[in-house]
Order: sequence, then C-alpha cells, then structure tokens
Amino acid sequence: MERYIKKYGLTVFSVLLLSCLCLAADGNIEKWGIYELSLFGPTTGNPFIDIQFGAVFKNGDRTFEPKGFYDGNGIFKIRFMPNAEGLWTWQTKSNCDALNDKKGQFTCVAPSSDSHGPVRVRNQYHFGHEDGTPFFPFGTTLYEWPFQSESLRCQTLETLKKWPFNKVRMLLVPPYESYYIEGPDKLIHFPFVGTSKENWDFSRFNPEFFRNVEQCVEQLCQMGIEADLILFRPYDKGKWGFDTMDMATNERFVRYAVARFAAYRNIWWSLANENSYIKQMMDSDWDRLFQAVQESDPYAHPRSIHNADRIYDYTKPWVTHVSLQYYMAVRWPGISPLLRDIYKKPIVHDEINYEGDMDRRWGQLTGQEMTYRFWNAYIGGAYATHGEALEETAEGKVTRWISKGGKLYGQSPERIAFLKRIIESGPQEGLDPVDQYYESNIGGHCGTYYLIYFGKDPVSEWEFCLPQKGLEPEMRFHADLIDTWDMTITPVEQVFEIDKLNRYTYIDKKRAKIEMPGKPYMALRIQRIE
Amino acid sequence: MERYIKKYGLTVFSVLLLSCLCLAADGNIEKWGIYELSLFGPTTGNPFIDIQFGAVFKNGDRTFEPKGFYDGNGIFKIRFMPNAEGLWTWQTKSNCDALNDKKGQFTCVAPSSDSHGPVRVRNQYHFGHEDGTPFFPFGTTLYEWPFQSESLRCQTLETLKKWPFNKVRMLLVPPYESYYIEGPDKLIHFPFVGTSKENWDFSRFNPEFFRNVEQCVEQLCQMGIEADLILFRPYDKGKWGFDTMDMATNERFVRYAVARFAAYRNIWWSLANENSYIKQMMDSDWDRLFQAVQESDPYAHPRSIHNADRIYDYTKPWVTHVSLQYYMAVRWPGISPLLRDIYKKPIVHDEINYEGDMDRRWGQLTGQEMTYRFWNAYIGGAYATHGEALEETAEGKVTRWISKGGKLYGQSPERIAFLKRIIESGPQEGLDPVDQYYESNIGGHCGTYYLIYFGKDPVSEWEFCLPQKGLEPEMRFHADLIDTWDMTITPVEQVFEIDKLNRYTYIDKKRAKIEMPGKPYMALRIQRIE
Repeated sequence: MERYIKKYGLTVFSVLLLSCLCLAADGNIEKWGIYELSLFGPTTGNPFIDIQFGAVFKNGDRTFEPKGFYDGNGIFKIRFMPNAEGLWTWQTKSNCDALNDKKGQFTCVAPSSDSHGPVRVRNQYHFGHEDGTPFFPFGTTLYEWPFQSESLRCQTLETLKKWPFNKVRMLLVPPYESYYIEGPDKLIHFPFVGTSKENWDFSRFNPEFFRNVEQCVEQLCQMGIEADLILFRPYDKGKWGFDTMDMATNERFVRYAVARFAAYRNIWWSLANENSYIKQMMDSDWDRLFQAVQESDPYAHPRSIHNADRIYDYTKPWVTHVSLQYYMAVRWPGISPLLRDIYKKPIVHDEINYEGDMDRRWGQLTGQEMTYRFWNAYIGGAYATHGEALEETAEGKVTRWISKGGKLYGQSPERIAFLKRIIESGPQEGLDPVDQYYESNIGGHCGTYYLIYFGKDPVSEWEFCLPQKGLEPEMRFHADLIDTWDMTITPVEQVFEIDKLNRYTYIDKKRAKIEMPGKPYMALRIQRIE
Repeated sequence: MERYIKKYGLTVFSVLLLSCLCLAADGNIEKWGIYELSLFGPTTGNPFIDIQFGAVFKNGDRTFEPKGFYDGNGIFKIRFMPNAEGLWTWQTKSNCDALNDKKGQFTCVAPSSDSHGPVRVRNQYHFGHEDGTPFFPFGTTLYEWPFQSESLRCQTLETLKKWPFNKVRMLLVPPYESYYIEGPDKLIHFPFVGTSKENWDFSRFNPEFFRNVEQCVEQLCQMGIEADLILFRPYDKGKWGFDTMDMATNERFVRYAVARFAAYRNIWWSLANENSYIKQMMDSDWDRLFQAVQESDPYAHPRSIHNADRIYDYTKPWVTHVSLQYYMAVRWPGISPLLRDIYKKPIVHDEINYEGDMDRRWGQLTGQEMTYRFWNAYIGGAYATHGEALEETAEGKVTRWISKGGKLYGQSPERIAFLKRIIESGPQEGLDPVDQYYESNIGGHCGTYYLIYFGKDPVSEWEFCLPQKGLEPEMRFHADLIDTWDMTITPVEQVFEIDKLNRYTYIDKKRAKIEMPGKPYMALRIQRIE
C-alpha cells in the first residue's frame, strides 16, 4: 500500500483500500474492486462547493475520469473501479493546488470467482454482468434497512443469504417516520449538516450519513446482490424537506452520491421511488437529474426511475431499463411483451404489490398471488421485484420486511426461489415471448425451449402444440410438468416428435396430449432433444 | 363567384368552389368548408418542383398559410378551410410572377347543422370536433375502396350509411395486386406520371389519381365520416416501388398530399400502415415525414402511424394519438389504461384482427370475439377499429370488406352499433378507467357513471360495489343490465343507496346484489340519480 505523508501546507495523501471489494490476497486491487485514493486538502470555505476534484485513470487505451468527493475532516477521496487487469496510472485534477496533479499507479489483478462485474443490459431485454455471466433479476424491497440497528441489519443480511433475491431496492434517504425522530431508532445522521428542517445546510453533506449506506451497499456486494439505490423519495410529510429542495441542491446531491457510490460494482441508480408524488418536480427536472447521473458515472450502471401516478417516459435515451409500478401489468403474462415492444428495453416490474396482511390494498397479496405475478412477469420476458408487508415482531417492535428488513414469513419467497432455479437453468439469453401477438402464456427460446404457464386455469390436459417459429418437422422434445405452488418438476415419460399442422403451428405427430392435474398454477417446460 | 380572365402571359384565375363541402345556399363558403382558388400558371419546366405557391388567408387575428399545389394543365390551386365566419381576405405568394401577389376575399357563413369541424384531441384521451361536439371513434377498415369500380364504391357508401362506423382507414396508394395490373379492375391512374416501375417519373404527380381519392374523402365527409388517410404502405411486393422511393420523394409526396387534402375537415393523417414492414425506412425517416405533415398542415388534423413489428415511439410530440396494432391489448380491458398512462394520449386500437373466415389468423375472429375486443377497448378508455374479412361475392368476384368494401356480412357491426349508442349516451367527456391499478373492468366517470364489463365470465350475481373515488355516502344509483351480444338493456328495478365499506370501496347500504344471467358478455351500467 502506498502511503505518503507530508505536513502543513503540503499534501498528505494515501491510498486506502476498501475492505473486501478490492483487495486481493497479494494486496493488489481486484478487477471491479475499488481503488480509493485519499488526499488531504483545505477545510476553509465550503469544500463541498468550492473544490472541484477528480482524476484520470489510465490503462492502455482505457481512460476513466471519476469525480472525487469531500469526505469531511479535510479528506478528499476518489474511488475508482478498474475494469481491466494490469497497471493503472492515475493523475489528479483540481482547482485546488493541494489536490492537483498528484500521480500514482496500482496493479489490478483478476477478480475473485464470485465477482462478475457490474450489470449491463444484454440482449436488449435482459441483463448480464460485465464478465458475460447472465443476470436474471429477482428483486426484493428493503426501503429503510440501512437506517436500522446493527442487529436488525445483521438479521436482514442473514435472511438475504437464505433467499433467492439478487437485487435490493433501497432508499438513500429515509422516509420521514416518527421513529426516526424519537425513541431508540432515532436517526443520528442525516444527508445534510444539521438536525432538523430548521437548520439544514443544504450546501454541506454529512459524510457519516453516506458512509453508513455505503457499508450496506458493500455488504450486499459481498453477497452478490445488486443495490438498486433510490436517490429521491416523496415520503417526507412536509417534515424534513428532502423532497422539496431546489434543483441546484438536487443536482449537487446526485453528483455527490454518484461520486461516492459509482465505484461499487453492484450499484443501480433509481432516480426516485414514486417520482410523481414529489409534486413540484416535473419530468424535465428528472431529465436533468438523469443526465447528471449519466454524465458523472464513469461506469454506466443501470439507470431508471420508479413511477407513481405519472409514468416517466422510459424511452428517453438515459433510461437503461423500465422500473415500473403497475400492478395490472403482472396480472396477465401477455402485457410484458407489449411493454417490451413499446420500450425496447428490459422491463422490471419493480412494484407489484406486497405479500402481506395490511389494511392497505397494496400490502394484501397472498403468497399465491405474489407467486402468480412473478410467473406472469418472467413468462412475458420481464422481471419482477418482491416485497413482504406481513407484520412481524423484531426487537420487540412490529415491523415489516419492506420497511426495515428482518425476517421473511411469507409463502412466496421459496416459490420465487423455485422459479429462479428454473429461469437460471433455462436459456442463458433470457426468456422471450415466442408468439406475443397471439399466445400470451409462452416464454422461451424459439426452437429449443418453451415455458408454458397456465396461471389460474385448471387445465386437465394439453395437446402438444407449439408456435412455428424456429421449428422444423421431426424435431423431438421432452416435457416436464411443473407445479409452481408445490414446487415439483415431473418429467413426462414420452418423447414428442413434431410435424407441421398449418402455417402457424406444429403439433406432435401422434397428436399426443399431456395429462395435467386440473388445478391452477401449473406450467410445462418443453425442451428440444438435440 | 369571382372570375377574372386575362389572356396570354397574363394571369387567368378563378375561384372554384368545391361541391357540397363549402357552398352555402347563398353561394358563400361555409365554416369548415373549402374555399378553392385556382390560378393559371406556367407549364414549362416541372411545375411540381419549380413552383412554390401558397397564400395567406386572414380574418381579424386569424392567419392561415396553406400551400398550393399544381393540379396539371397549367392550373395551380390552393384549398383553404376557414374556421371562422365573416370576411376572409387572401393574398398569394409565389416564386412565379404569374402566381404571386394575387388578392381576393370571400365571406364565410355558418356551417350546416351536420358539420362540426375537424376532430381534435379532447380531454387528453378522447376526441371532439372543433365546435365542441364529442367524437367517439368507431372505425372500420376499407384499405382499397377508392380504387374500385363506381358501382362497388356506391355499394360501400350505402353500406356505411347503415352501420355505425364514423372513421374509415384507407390507403392513399393501393397495394400491389394483380387485379390492378390486368383485368377489369386494372388501374388507370397512379400517383406518379408513368405506367410501371420502368417509367415512373417520381418528380411529377398525377393529379387525376389524387382527385379520385379526394372524391372518396369528400363522400365520407358528406356522411360525417372521418377519413383516416394512410400515406405510405409496404404492400408493394417489389413491383411498383412506391415503398422504396428516396426520402426526398417521400417528403415531396407528403407535402403534395397535405396541400391537396388538408382542407377537408374530415382528414386524419396516418403516416403509414404497418410502417416497419417498409424495411429501409427508419424511425428517423418517419420523424421527418411526421414533421413535414405537421409543418404543412395549417389545421393540425390528427396525426399517427400504424405499426407492424416495431412500434413507433408515440410519445413524440408530433403524434396526436396512438394508432396501435397489438391484438393482445384488446383481449383484456386492463391494458388500455396502461397504454393511456404510458402515452398520455388517446389510444385507438386501429387493428384488432378482423371478423372473418380466412386461413390467415388475423382474419379469423368470430363476431363474438370482435364484439368482445371492442368492449374491452372502450371499457379501458380507448377506441377501436373494426374490419371484416369474410368472403363475399361482389360483381361476380370474391372480395372482402377490408380490401374493397361492398357489403358487411358479419355479426359484429350491429353489436358495435349497440355499443356506440351506449357510449354516445354516456359521459360526453368519454369513458375513463375509474380505478385502473386494481379494477380492470370498469370504465366511467367517477361519481356519476359506471360501465362494468364482465367479458367471458358467466357471472350469476354482482354485489353492488364501486371504487371510492368521487363517491359519498347516501348517493343513489340505478342500474341497467346489458346483454352485449343480444343487445338488450334491462333496467334493474331497484334504487341503490351507497355507504362506505372501507378506504377503497362503497357498497349498497343493504348489501344488495344484482342477479345476472350467468352467461358471458354481460355488462352493467350504473348511473347516479341526482
């Protein structure tokens, strides 16, 4: 580890390495780890505003220019995520002499086996890590988990280890709740310097607040979970004013967050939760903030925004994928293909109601309905995010997973895990609708793989037939009967050889039928025998 | 009628008045009629290309600048649709002296009682005529009717008189079909000068071709039917080349069509049918043509484009409404509200498959399925377009309504007429979804009017309950049981007085239920008793 210390008036700077995200056994930086550079600089004036600070990192033709940020106590940092092995050199740029033109280098080594790099859009409607590993999002919702006690956070992480979820939707700024103002859960740290609406200094961030959330992002990263970090939220009840800041402050906030978080390989940017409930912010304001993220994130992490009653225009070029709240859209598998065709981007149904027992109808899904909605999303070539709003008792208080984390009690998580195993063992390109204008319930990969979902229909037999695309006479298939609720996969003891029925359809030569149990929530998996 | 004639080298110009669209009994021009100005000009060179020609029409603060067009034989025309009564003055502008700086005036008088002006978007998701009369589109499809024999065209118009359709989707350029090349239906006129792919002069239009289509548009106008005129189509089979012209020609074609047709008050512009099947035209090309229409149409008639396998981005500012081909989207009423929320514009399901007996699956709907899809569209706050592909025999030849017109034989038109009467007698603002995130089958106007559609569910009773928005305790309602297939409306002999059940729902105080016949395709209409 390099370390230079000079005194008074001269630079003191050091390269601090973040724990597990970067440090290989030999002390070098892993590919997609974080190289963190810290410099001492001036504390006079307002360093958050006055100092521009960044660095150029180079490796051959590769050049990145991450922005730095003021981390308090005279320390200025730059975080960098190298995307190639080998020697990287760096050189700082600043309007402050003490931070300008510093140089250094480090060696980047192979990533550990469980690190696959940031997630990118892949095959237009799907996702994959930078190393080529497919990423099939199976999200869950944990809005406030970073702001809970250490013990509750540990419990949340333990729960996440047991369950299938690989993306967590979480707020960067907590909602206003009375328990954050008084009592044992009282917040110590806020995003800005100050203690209440009366005395925020919106020109000064509170680094300690951000460090706490960073720790959570890092913990998720270590578990291979993507952190879908929500930058703005409307849940302020007029108390704190974090949803009514002026646009200059909003943009500074965005750029500060990007400077701090972008080097974490598991970051996704969600500009807001239920954005249109922040009434004074127009779509043009969101455009501007999207562009600020796009400009300042050197790694182009996924970017989207989650809607309330006014859907943002996801066709805009800075939106990488659709993060939709529209419950109806997962009540039938035929709708996701339409959304794909409209937006031409991956569709993530990021809020589909929660499994729960609340008096609010958005928190009343049965486990069956949640599982059904998941299947509808994936059969339609889209993705979904889970949430649980069952009352639980954690640390003697009633709470819910979607808010604070803790444990999961619902019936859907193990069924979602079952679906995830099926999806992950299916086409690595992701499921696509195979005949979306006419057949709503078949996702797959034409010619080789079909997942047919019967939803609530209690089908008692199914005549073997498939849409023609990609098929030829005499192709042979086997089938599995899937009970999506009881989580069983039963091979059908038969080989199906197909022939063309008409312009649109292939059927089994012998018109074979598959017997089905006549109950809801069944599926068939049909795979070609090569 | 003004008429000046001067000879040789001097201008000969006249104001010709188009038949019924403009001429009041006293010889003046009706509001929303057409004032047509004709001037003689040079025939040397290529007047289609060389001559720029237009006029400024003024009435007080109102100013319109329609472009003129060359109509052949040395005649240059400008058509103008006045939108206010009173004296209008005009003055021509041209790069040709013979056509420049001519002046005149005319008096515009009140429209006849059946003229309501052009259609505009109204209430964001709906339409209305310029005089405030609501327009609820109930379209039908008659792609090639302008290119048929006089007798078949007359029969088509007679059929249209009997049925509910108030918008006709029609091609400006016929598809390539062998019957247009040889035999009794052989085309005499083409949009360009020439007789085949070998000798088109794409720099010269054939006015006679356009006059024929104009006559059809005018005939529809006289019947109060909107002409949804489709400017481009892919159905060329490599034979004529009308789908592979260069963009300069395409744009000239668009501007010529707008100059000729825009003054017809019943015109809608559809940039293309199945646009993405014209493979070499990118969305940026369609953008450019949309903008050409927008710039050159002084009256801002509705503008859209009809998709094939790549959906154009209907959020673009020059698109006034969505003209969608996506059959799945009318197989459930819950999808149109989603489309409204995505596009924030009126949704017209302009192709939902055709009632028919074809071997192609897009022409195989039963009358029941067509009727069902119509109800789904309107309940969702959208609109739909009918088409019939039943084989018929007209003039001794097998043909189909969607192509050539003739008669209608299907079971859906009278059910669509029944639906139209219900819609027209409902809220004049148009139906909107009343609780679209949770209830898929209720369209209406919160607090006063609800149309509940049960689709294929054979419901045998319905407990009176309505989503809370706009409701208060003690409001009173009556109900009608609607059989959408047998076309009956049966009043329920009961008054319902509501009370709040919970945060979301009002029910009848006595928990009254309505008995339903337990068969599919039933609806309820619930209206407030003031």
